[in-house]
Amino acid sequence: MVDATKEPARLTRKGQATRKRILGAAADLILKQGVAATHITDVREAAGVSGSQMSHYFHDKQALIKDVIAWQAESALDAHRHPELGKLDSFDAWRLWAKLITEKQAARGCAGGCEFGSLAGQLVESDPETRADIAVGYEQWLDLFRQGLHIMRDRGDLRRDADPDALAHALLGTMQGGMLLAQTLRRIDPLRDALNAAVSYLETFATERSLDD
Amino acid sequence: MVDATKEPARLTRKGQATRKRILGAAADLILKQGVAATHITDVREAAGVSGSQMSHYFHDKQALIKDVIAWQAESALDAHRHPELGKLDSFDAWRLWAKLITEKQAARGCAGGCEFGSLAGQLVESDPETRADIAVGYEQWLDLFRQGLHIMRDRGDLRRDADPDALAHALLGTMQGGMLLAQTLRRIDPLRDALNAAVSYLETFATERSLDD
Repeated sequence: MVDATKEPARLTRKGQATRKRILGAAADLILKQGVAATHITDVREAAGVSGSQMSHYFHDKQALIKDVIAWQAESALDAHRHPELGKLDSFDAWRLWAKLITEKQAARGCAGGCEFGSLAGQLVESDPETRADIAVGYEQWLDLFRQGLHIMRDRGDLRRDADPDALAHALLGTMQGGMLLAQTLRRIDPLRDALNAAVSYLETFATERSLDD
Repeated sequence: MVDATKEPARLTRKGQATRKRILGAAADLILKQGVAATHITDVREAAGVSGSQMSHYFHDKQALIKDVIAWQAESALDAHRHPELGKLDSFDAWRLWAKLITEKQAARGCAGGCEFGSLAGQLVESDPETRADIAVGYEQWLDLFRQGLHIMRDRGDLRRDADPDALAHALLGTMQGGMLLAQTLRRIDPLRDALNAAVSYLETFATERSLDD
C-alpha cells in the first residue's frame, strides 16, 4: 500500500498541505454520498483547488480513492498511538482502548462511526483492487493488535493456548460492528457492551500469574 | 416501519412478485454502486418493469429505499427461522447460529457480506429518516436475541448477573464486524474467530446447573 501520510519528497510543505486537504475533502464526500456519486470536480470544489492542481496531485479518481483508503487506514492506526495505550500489550491497555473508543464516539453523539470501517463498507464490493487496498489497511490494524497480544503471551500474561490471530480478529471485528450499531442506533451502549465483551473474553485467557499482579 | 414482506392486500400474486423483483433489483444496485448513484430508471431496467409499473409500486426513490431497508431487515430475521435455532434460547442454539453464519459466508467465498449490514453502512449517514428506518431493523434483530437470552436467564441457564441487552449488543455487534472483516479480507477466519469469541463470552455466564446438563 502507498503510505499516504508520507508525501512524495518533491512536494513542498504547502504542496503537502494541499494534498491533505484534497484527501480530507474526498474522504468526507465519499462517506456522505458514496464513491459512485463523488466526482473529481466535487472534490476539487470542496477542497478549493484548481483543475490543474487536482491533476498534479491525483491523476485520476482511482488514484485518489486509493490514497483516501491509505490515508484513513493510517489515521485509524494513528489513533492507537496514545501514550497510555503503549503497544496494546497489557490488560490495562486493552481496557483503556475500549474506554477511549467509547468516549470518543459518545462525545460525538455516535454520529459518523468508524471512518475506515465506513469506507470499507462503502467500497468493499466496488472492484477487486479497491477491496485489496482496504484489506491491506485491515491487515495493518490486525498486525498492531497481534503484536501486542504476542507480547502478552510471551510475557506470560496470556495462557499458551491464547491465539493472538484469533483474538485480534475478535477484538477488531467486535469494535467494527459495535461502531456500526452505535452509529445507526445513535446510542453508545451497543459499542460499550460489545467492547466490554471482547476485552472480557480476552481476560478469560489471563494466566494465574497475571491475575496475581 | 412498513413491513415490506406484507404487501398491500390489493396486490395480486403477480403484483407481489413484481414488487419483490423491484425490491431485489434495487437492493442489488444499492449494494453495488451506492444509493446516490442508483437511479429509479436503473432499478426499473434491472427489474424489467415499465415506468408506469414502477410508479404504481413505489411513488419515489425515498419510498423505494424505505422498503428496501424493511425488506432486508425482514430477510435478516428470516435467516434466524432455522428449525434447529429455535428461539436462540440455548447454548447449543448460539453455537449453531455461529456455525450457520460462518458456513454460509464460507460457501460464497466471503463475498457480499451481510446484506443488512452493508445497507446500514451505505445509508446510515444519508438522512435522519433513513437512519431511523435502519435503526428499527437493528432493534428488531436485537429483540430476537434479547428474547432468547431472557428465556435462558429465566430458565436458569444464564446467571442472574447476565444482561440480555448487553449480550445481544455484543453478539450482534461482533457478528456485523466479523462479517465486514471476512468480506474485506476474503477469508473466513475473522468471522469464525469473532463469533467464537462472542459465543464463548456468552458461555462465561453459564450457571453451574446448565454446565452439568
